[in-house]
Amino acid sequence: MQTHSHLRQLAILSTLLCTPAISFAQNVQATANNIEYPKGLTNWRVIGTSIRSDNNTQRVILGNSIAIKAARANTGKQEWPKGTILAKLVWKNDTLATWKAATVPGDFVHAEIMLRDTKKYATTGGWGFARWTGLDLKPHSQDSNAGEACFTCHQAAKDTNYVFTVPAKLP
Amino acid sequence: MQTHSHLRQLAILSTLLCTPAISFAQNVQATANNIEYPKGLTNWRVIGTSIRSDNNTQRVILGNSIAIKAARANTGKQEWPKGTILAKLVWKNDTLATWKAATVPGDFVHAEIMLRDTKKYATTGGWGFARWTGLDLKPHSQDSNAGEACFTCHQAAKDTNYVFTVPAKLP
Repeated sequence: MQTHSHLRQLAILSTLLCTPAISFAQNVQATANNIEYPKGLTNWRVIGTSIRSDNNTQRVILGNSIAIKAARANTGKQEWPKGTILAKLVWKNDTLATWKAATVPGDFVHAEIMLRDTKKYATTGGWGFARWTGLDLKPHSQDSNAGEACFTCHQAAKDTNYVFTVPAKLP
Repeated sequence: MQTHSHLRQLAILSTLLCTPAISFAQNVQATANNIEYPKGLTNWRVIGTSIRSDNNTQRVILGNSIAIKAARANTGKQEWPKGTILAKLVWKNDTLATWKAATVPGDFVHAEIMLRDTKKYATTGGWGFARWTGLDLKPHSQDSNAGEACFTCHQAAKDTNYVFTVPAKLP
C-alpha cells in the first residue's frame, strides 16, 4: 500500500511538473492515410524557420524529442531515427504594424508533419506525410494516397533523406 | 527521515522527467547591465517568427513558461506579467539549396531577451534588455546603459508595452 501511495505521489508530481498549463487541440481527426495529429505539438522545441516567396508563407519547424535529439547531435551527417516527427506550423505572411520592414505570421494556414518509419512508409522515402488545415486542424485530404503527392515534391530533397529542413545553428 | 526520503525521490524523479537530454550553453557571461543568459533558452516554446528586410535576418521568438502562458491566454489584451522573458534567436537570411524560393536561417547572429520587471526596469518601459552575440554568446555591449539604446528603438511599440512581437495564431 505504501508503495502504491508513493507511486501515486510520483504520478501526481510528474503531472504537475511536466504538464504545461495549456490546452491542446482535442479530437483532431486522423488523416486519410491514418496519421494522428500529435498532441502537444505546439509545445515542441524549435529546429528552424523558413519563409517561402513562392506562396507567401512563413513557418516554424518543430520536432518531437527524438527529432530534437537528432537535430542537435552535431554528428556531421543529419540522421532522422525511427519515430522522428518533424512538424511545420505555417502562416500567411503579414507586415508588422510597428515595424514595416518586418514580415510576421498572419493567418494560420496549416500544420503538417513528417513521421519517420522506413518500413511502414517505404514507398514514400521512409516518411509518413500528413497535413491539417486551419486553426481547427481539418485533415487536408480525403485521399489515403495523399502522402505520395507530398513525396513527389520532396524528391527535390532526396540527398537529405527527403527533408528540406536543415537544422538552424543554435548557441 | 521518511519525508526526506520522499522528497529526495520526488526531486530525482522531477529531474529525470523534466530535464531534456541536451547540453546548454555554459558559463555565458552576464551583460554589462547585469542580466544573466537564461539556461535552456533554446528549449523554450515558440511564440512567433519574423523576417526583417532592413537587416536581412530572420528570427524565432521564444518564451519562458510565464511568457508562454501569457502569450497563449487569448484574453484579448496581451499582458506580460512580472518574470516574463521573451527571447529572440536571430540568423542571417540564407537560401535553401533544395528549394530556392525558401529563405532559411544562415549564420547565427545573436540571442536577445526582454525581461519583465516594471519596478526594476522602470526607466526602460518595464523591461530589461540584453543581447549576446554569436554562437559563443558574448555579451553584445560593455555599456551598462545599453538597455536604453534598445528601449529607444522599442518606442515604436509603445502601444503594445514596448513589445514588437504579436504572438502567432496557434491551433
